[in-house]
Amino acid sequence: MLRKTTQFKNMLTSPDLEFIMEAHNGLSAKIVEEAGFKGIWGSGLSISAALGVRDNNEASWTQVLEVIEFMSDATTIPLLLDADTGYGNFNNARRLVKKLEQRNIAAMCIEDKIFPKTNSFINGEQQQLAEVDEFCGKIKASKDSQSDSDFCVVARVEALIAGWGVGEALKRAEAYHNAGADAILMHSKIATADEILAFMKEWKNTCPVVIVPTMYYQTPTNVFAEAGVSLVIWANHLLRTSLTAMQQTAATIFKERSLNSVEGKIASVKDIFRIQNADELKQAEKKYLP
Amino acid sequence: MLRKTTQFKNMLTSPDLEFIMEAHNGLSAKIVEEAGFKGIWGSGLSISAALGVRDNNEASWTQVLEVIEFMSDATTIPLLLDADTGYGNFNNARRLVKKLEQRNIAAMCIEDKIFPKTNSFINGEQQQLAEVDEFCGKIKASKDSQSDSDFCVVARVEALIAGWGVGEALKRAEAYHNAGADAILMHSKIATADEILAFMKEWKNTCPVVIVPTMYYQTPTNVFAEAGVSLVIWANHLLRTSLTAMQQTAATIFKERSLNSVEGKIASVKDIFRIQNADELKQAEKKYLP
Amino acid sequence: MLRKTTQFKNMLTSPDLEFIMEAHNGLSAKIVEEAGFKGIWGSGLSISAALGVRDNNEASWTQVLEVIEFMSDATTIPLLLDADTGYGNFNNARRLVKKLEQRNIAAMCIEDKIFPKTNSFINGEQQQLAEVDEFCGKIKASKDSQSDSDFCVVARVEALIAGWGVGEALKRAEAYHNAGADAILMHSKIATADEILAFMKEWKNTCPVVIVPTMYYQTPTNVFAEAGVSLVIWANHLLRTSLTAMQQTAATIFKERSLNSVEGKIASVKDIFRIQNADELKQAEKKYLP
Amino acid sequence: MLRKTTQFKNMLTSPDLEFIMEAHNGLSAKIVEEAGFKGIWGSGLSISAALGVRDNNEASWTQVLEVIEFMSDATTIPLLLDADTGYGNFNNARRLVKKLEQRNIAAMCIEDKIFPKTNSFINGEQQQLAEVDEFCGKIKASKDSQSDSDFCVVARVEALIAGWGVGEALKRAEAYHNAGADAILMHSKIATADEILAFMKEWKNTCPVVIVPTMYYQTPTNVFAEAGVSLVIWANHLLRTSLTAMQQTAATIFKERSLNSVEGKIASVKDIFRIQNADELKQAEKKYLP
Repeated sequence: MLRKTTQFKNMLTSPDLEFIMEAHNGLSAKIVEEAGFKGIWGSGLSISAALGVRDNNEASWTQVLEVIEFMSDATTIPLLLDADTGYGNFNNARRLVKKLEQRNIAAMCIEDKIFPKTNSFINGEQQQLAEVDEFCGKIKASKDSQSDSDFCVVARVEALIAGWGVGEALKRAEAYHNAGADAILMHSKIATADEILAFMKEWKNTCPVVIVPTMYYQTPTNVFAEAGVSLVIWANHLLRTSLTAMQQTAATIFKERSLNSVEGKIASVKDIFRIQNADELKQAEKKYLP
Repeated sequence: MLRKTTQFKNMLTSPDLEFIMEAHNGLSAKIVEEAGFKGIWGSGLSISAALGVRDNNEASWTQVLEVIEFMSDATTIPLLLDADTGYGNFNNARRLVKKLEQRNIAAMCIEDKIFPKTNSFINGEQQQLAEVDEFCGKIKASKDSQSDSDFCVVARVEALIAGWGVGEALKRAEAYHNAGADAILMHSKIATADEILAFMKEWKNTCPVVIVPTMYYQTPTNVFAEAGVSLVIWANHLLRTSLTAMQQTAATIFKERSLNSVEGKIASVKDIFRIQNADELKQAEKKYLP
Repeated sequence: MLRKTTQFKNMLTSPDLEFIMEAHNGLSAKIVEEAGFKGIWGSGLSISAALGVRDNNEASWTQVLEVIEFMSDATTIPLLLDADTGYGNFNNARRLVKKLEQRNIAAMCIEDKIFPKTNSFINGEQQQLAEVDEFCGKIKASKDSQSDSDFCVVARVEALIAGWGVGEALKRAEAYHNAGADAILMHSKIATADEILAFMKEWKNTCPVVIVPTMYYQTPTNVFAEAGVSLVIWANHLLRTSLTAMQQTAATIFKERSLNSVEGKIASVKDIFRIQNADELKQAEKKYLP
Repeated sequence: MLRKTTQFKNMLTSPDLEFIMEAHNGLSAKIVEEAGFKGIWGSGLSISAALGVRDNNEASWTQVLEVIEFMSDATTIPLLLDADTGYGNFNNARRLVKKLEQRNIAAMCIEDKIFPKTNSFINGEQQQLAEVDEFCGKIKASKDSQSDSDFCVVARVEALIAGWGVGEALKRAEAYHNAGADAILMHSKIATADEILAFMKEWKNTCPVVIVPTMYYQTPTNVFAEAGVSLVIWANHLLRTSLTAMQQTAATIFKERSLNSVEGKIASVKDIFRIQNADELKQAEKKYLP
């Protein structure tokens, strides 16, 4: 089996439009793999929400690291970590690369904002962007720190989110690519793909582009394929579906004081054992216990 | 507001049958509180499954501690931790009490098995039980270590699970109560409540009894109320409903390469922000930022 | 015994000049207590150096938190944490207060620099200071978050370090005090106490002042007492003495391929057992094991 | 440079008697490397004592893992972890192997005792040994889990410590070697090397032998070389020398209320910066900051 870093790099550089799916803990990561996806998005929003905190670097970077270590250990497909700003300056970012490589994380995405960050869908226009030179230094330091040549650094451009327009987005994408980024994640929060398509038209396939169609989800994905996008991130939908399901199930059980109407609709305890791979341990006990 | 320890002790000693619901991370803990439940069950099975490991003490006790710290910080209702065997001997168990109290965890449940434990629904009859004296020493050490007089230690009896019968279950429950346990959790894995009801008949309300009707869920809960049970644990249903929901949503998105048929059925990004309490931070920024 | 927060507040407000000593792990914290000191300085430099990283926020804030949790658990005297900038903005700082209170840490010191910080003795004059308003917001948010009224926030002024002069130092000290700081830590890196004494002369005892005479150690401490200083921090000397001792012992054993000339000069294995309080466990085993 | 696993394996199999030195955090690990040693002993006693807890598995295995991750990151020589019993059964031990390999730890030593363990120098004769078959299963599972063929599992025999004699020690050493152990650590706590030499005489170089002459330190090391021992562990002397130095320095500063008589005898702040490699960051700032 290919190294996870190579698997991810291959996705970025393949001629096809590829898709990765959000996960926020070991269980959801396994579900992503079992569903057939080739990669996992370690979403900052989802991980923080699952932990019970806000998407404002309230969890420390080592707490996030522990979450994705569980996710990576539980799966065989590559994980792209949503690493916010790299959790500080170039030195924090380059140290992170080493920690990610140790844990077999394939790639990280860093964004041109200021630590502590705010989620891009909150007060976007008021968000401060990093200076281009400072962020390019962070990219360079990260790339210089990797030991596996296929480890990827994806540079996320927040210029559209902050309302600075496609021109600024292009300028930054170009600079980040020149600084060594393996791909550009161009983020947009409007309800259509207009900004993204305008960017793609000018970008001319300089390097792979990653997008996150959370807000402009109504655009068919073949439009993105034709525009030359390399990778689509489904960014937070497993967390969102689990939130709804848990709210409904909790409400039903609370009201009915009974599991009767819930039992048939949810996974069984055996389903949990299966996805935990309890059988492997049973076999191992036969092999290793007296 | 009452201390969490006091809230939990009041539930144990109230004349009514009370209910607590499983959670496995900060998000699900908030959902439990918002649904109206008065308490949270920090399930060992659910926490390990969510992390992506097995319910065999694969996660370290400090990793579990960090999970429940997030859960407790995110909520105002008490949490009862499923603390397996106390993660070792009496010394490990009594140190755990101090760590739980620091993190405002109201109570812990320890079971009379051997570290590392195996889930009670796997190979139950082959599971080794702790010696009664050893387990009583663990209960005593735990009770002697608490500084908040309302912190509760619930002693879980696995005699029925291991097939030793109601007589052994009664003997152990009596011994654990005498050693200082604030309540007895009597576990059973048969499809009817027969064992539990047989136990309750003989127990004569010596101290509060907690049950986990995962397998005998078809028995109406008023039967338990009439039998004198104090507390029912819905032990793993939020994890199970989230597993099903995530599997279905992942399958749909993978197949359709589109969010269209999913988007209307799942929580919105704004719902996530709401449950993360993003608004409080927005207010705080107005107050504390220049 | 008084709460640790109260113990520390009493030291700040006592008419005498008080002293606290640096520690960097549980062992050195115990040594500080056994030596007779009334409090512990959780030094950022020493903790990072002991971990093997730099004093530039290379360790995450939760890694530091774990270190001082061990330190606080091992001792009965209060600990003042050197919390750098609060590890981010006002939100990170106020969350830290809650985590410190849970772990029974008496107080924290935050400094008016930018995250990630650089040690004050490196390139001081090039270091960027936080804006006064931003730092005052951080102090206010921290004070508003504490639940124990005696928890103290010490505001560290880096104006002298950065070469901005006594006037700026006074202006900042005044602003931080008005924002709610319980004490001012006035830092200086010149070889004499001139700057500190010039500050004290103008300060007129508005609120307690803490100093760190690492560089101006030749000034007798009664000079500080007379000038009205409340608390002296011996900031890194246990780490430094252990560094020297370990280097010498390692060199000797490496060269001689023998322990002979070392054995009599170092603590015995029994001394380790004593400071670990092994005897308490032996007694507890008698009490709690069958 | 050779992989750390290969470096360690080469030490075990070299014809010369080799030496490794204890460390307990990143700083002491660097000191071991700078002193010239080819390897580091991650001592369970020292690590627990430094943390401020007892050598009875009071720290969780992930807390120990974090300590040795800092140690390994700070150095280029291999680290042999004193992994107690593997922190549970065969499943805990084999999972540990994967975690150690991720963190670039060269080897682990596991001992034939029961979790939670007690230090071998406390109540040795009352300590319970693991059953031979159970411990062999643990060794096999550990060896089957490694991905780097040079990762070494050292099996520590406690038979002499427990007073079971050289015959039992030989029987166990043989069994552990047959189960796949790369080396045998034969532990003894008497004041002479008699037991060890008796064992070596019978062992006939079946596989490498590691010893820990803490108690029988007066025996010249060339005696061990001649007896065919492969590796000597200086097991806790950096912790012990640092304990003495810190106690003396703390006492002096407390008494004198001054640093004057201490300052010249301890490492300088610049010495700390040097061992933290502050210069590398200064260079990197020139390269990566605008």
